[in-house]
Amino acid sequence: MSAVRTPIILVNFKAYIEATGKRALDLARTAEKVGLESDVCIAVAPQFADIGIISQKVNIPVFAQHIDPVKPGSFTGHILPEDVRSAGAVGTLVNHSERRLKLADIDEVITRAREVNLLTVACTNNVAVSAATAALGPDMIAVEPPELIGTGIPVSKAKPEVVTNTIASVRKINSEVVILCGAGITNGEDVAAAIKLGTEGVLVASGIVKAKDPHMVMSEFAEAAKRV
Amino acid sequence: MSAVRTPIILVNFKAYIEATGKRALDLARTAEKVGLESDVCIAVAPQFADIGIISQKVNIPVFAQHIDPVKPGSFTGHILPEDVRSAGAVGTLVNHSERRLKLADIDEVITRAREVNLLTVACTNNVAVSAATAALGPDMIAVEPPELIGTGIPVSKAKPEVVTNTIASVRKINSEVVILCGAGITNGEDVAAAIKLGTEGVLVASGIVKAKDPHMVMSEFAEAAKRV
Amino acid sequence: MSAVRTPIILVNFKAYIEATGKRALDLARTAEKVGLESDVCIAVAPQFADIGIISQKVNIPVFAQHIDPVKPGSFTGHILPEDVRSAGAVGTLVNHSERRLKLADIDEVITRAREVNLLTVACTNNVAVSAATAALGPDMIAVEPPELIGTGIPVSKAKPEVVTNTIASVRKINSEVVILCGAGITNGEDVAAAIKLGTEGVLVASGIVKAKDPHMVMSEFAEAAKRV
Amino acid sequence: MSAVRTPIILVNFKAYIEATGKRALDLARTAEKVGLESDVCIAVAPQFADIGIISQKVNIPVFAQHIDPVKPGSFTGHILPEDVRSAGAVGTLVNHSERRLKLADIDEVITRAREVNLLTVACTNNVAVSAATAALGPDMIAVEPPELIGTGIPVSKAKPEVVTNTIASVRKINSEVVILCGAGITNGEDVAAAIKLGTEGVLVASGIVKAKDPHMVMSEFAEAAKRV
Repeated sequence: MSAVRTPIILVNFKAYIEATGKRALDLARTAEKVGLESDVCIAVAPQFADIGIISQKVNIPVFAQHIDPVKPGSFTGHILPEDVRSAGAVGTLVNHSERRLKLADIDEVITRAREVNLLTVACTNNVAVSAATAALGPDMIAVEPPELIGTGIPVSKAKPEVVTNTIASVRKINSEVVILCGAGITNGEDVAAAIKLGTEGVLVASGIVKAKDPHMVMSEFAEAAKRV
Repeated sequence: MSAVRTPIILVNFKAYIEATGKRALDLARTAEKVGLESDVCIAVAPQFADIGIISQKVNIPVFAQHIDPVKPGSFTGHILPEDVRSAGAVGTLVNHSERRLKLADIDEVITRAREVNLLTVACTNNVAVSAATAALGPDMIAVEPPELIGTGIPVSKAKPEVVTNTIASVRKINSEVVILCGAGITNGEDVAAAIKLGTEGVLVASGIVKAKDPHMVMSEFAEAAKRV
Repeated sequence: MSAVRTPIILVNFKAYIEATGKRALDLARTAEKVGLESDVCIAVAPQFADIGIISQKVNIPVFAQHIDPVKPGSFTGHILPEDVRSAGAVGTLVNHSERRLKLADIDEVITRAREVNLLTVACTNNVAVSAATAALGPDMIAVEPPELIGTGIPVSKAKPEVVTNTIASVRKINSEVVILCGAGITNGEDVAAAIKLGTEGVLVASGIVKAKDPHMVMSEFAEAAKRV
Repeated sequence: MSAVRTPIILVNFKAYIEATGKRALDLARTAEKVGLESDVCIAVAPQFADIGIISQKVNIPVFAQHIDPVKPGSFTGHILPEDVRSAGAVGTLVNHSERRLKLADIDEVITRAREVNLLTVACTNNVAVSAATAALGPDMIAVEPPELIGTGIPVSKAKPEVVTNTIASVRKINSEVVILCGAGITNGEDVAAAIKLGTEGVLVASGIVKAKDPHMVMSEFAEAAKRV
């Protein structure tokens, strides 16, 4: 597993059929290739059952899409932090807008992730929630206005003030957290805009997973991230 | 993958540390060995990230502990039925007492499981809920009084009427569903009692996963299931 | 409080501003008036904080929109069955599509409602779920295809087979439960169609609450229900 | 309704049978009496269906135990901020440990409460979560270690560092929010200890609701709050 570093392009595979099972492995291999070609950190967040095989066969950072705020024990159908770590994940998304968590559980998830050596990328929906999240000490925050997710309208261009205000508010509370943005990121320009606003990378899903040519789009993203 | 048949001993690995990662694989191999030795169907329900490796390396039926009522799409941190199927699962628990679902979602999960060719073992907590679940057409129902789960007090001996009344109520509504029971099943006698009451197997977790010698306990379970 | 009897027109006030606070009381008074004029049972399900004043000042059956599956105790922000009963409710909706419950909780809610003498109107979304719900023994079942709720396209005309198949499936399991239907019911014709299909009434919300002249629409509903 | 002011003793009625229906009204009257006798602000948070009658008949500040993050519309079984305001509430608890909310929903609830002129008392379980909550701008924060709730072991004496560290962390982020503490508060000494630590009041439930003589205990609380 290559190291997590910035700028980072973190590809959320969601439950897209284009990123399920064998196709998840293929997409991860494409990400690995682009990472090598561009020397930009491309990380992937596949579905749980695909973490093991991707971690084993592909040399890129693998994130879980979620972990539960639990310790080992009597929990059925839960995502134990130790288990995704054991399967090869190096980090996890936390509180994605499609998997929102209770506040106390976000705190517990960040604590548990640290205990098992998983990086945390906490997702937030606006400036106030980003500031609140910063107080909980995640490794990264990815601000994503939910109304733009999946639209192709990039946050970095449609709502730049959400990004810049998030950075300002978060920095007052937490000087170390890495700040990403997401929602609607579709091409290199959107990535460049995000980085110019002060982020250190992007969280992206359909823009890459559903692209006709994911290799080309990932390459464009990587070049844009590097150039800025 | 060997076929699912009855009597069945279905071992829920939960999020026990004794059944996480490498230890999950070891326990699945023990189950495979006992299955071969006894010619009784031993199936396992590991954590999601362990489904792939176990399905690949061990020749026993593998179940997911849960799936979400979703189709492929924009869902982060969800369990897509297609994905656990692709990783090798042949079935899934549904509505375990530690992962209870909304009624409409149980219906949708059973429908989705059928679409992707996953068997469903719907868990229930009492006679009325078992009857209700039978109307939704799962492949199996496992009745487990939640107050006995993890106690070592076997439902088949402490509350036999829950089992027999469940069978009677379910049969009025659904003549085909396979009926299991669970909660507190610890030794061969408990298994024999369950089968004598009319079930076709047991759902078990800590009784095997946390046993000092899982091979010995599984063997005892299998012999008891066969003998009846 | 006048008695609950069939045919019944049950008006769900939801969280509509037109049925909040003072306006909830006004709408309940209109329902009372139409009930007296038509001699048809018109019942209302206002928001929790309006149950007391309506029960006290208006002589019609008042339902809660939901109760929680809890006994008196350490629960904050929950709906205790005893409390809505004490405030004057005679029944409660259960598992409305906008407040879906876990299967085991529906069972517990129906049990708790019976303990405190509240009638239950369990809402369902399709035929299979209606059959499952019938096994839990509610007083009434209201089948409402969620995709039609709030559309003005009446279930009784757009999906009559959902209603007739629900009646057939439910009757196999439960011979006593009163069956209603809902979703998109907008005028007297829709009500008449519902009753001709074999239901004993309708569950309605926006069709009445958001009508320009609720008195006129309620009267039309009541006359249609009576005529069939 | 008398004004909310500090020091404040906020009595959460929970779903205790001793504070349901008629008994809720009686308890609120006792609170009113003690408030007049002591000139300390005693506020109550009864169940939803009791808000109206208490607000109408008793001259003390009434809080809801919870509101939902919704605007008026198609929501069944939800707590519309406008409705509890209309019934007479002047504020609401938010995110009580028995009614925990998703982070984004806490943000939305605080926004919605402000829109309808309800004060917010956001409950938190530890120092980090208190700091996070402070960034969302509630009117008050009540820190309550959940493991002490209902135990009679007062946070102000058993875990004073939770209180003082909460105050320190919150003040870095929000200079205006009023800070309360709760959990295990049983007598005047516990209240005095809480205020000496720097809080401006307490959130209390069973200590008063389940007391043999609530009037006596409330008086003791009020005197202690005043004396410090």
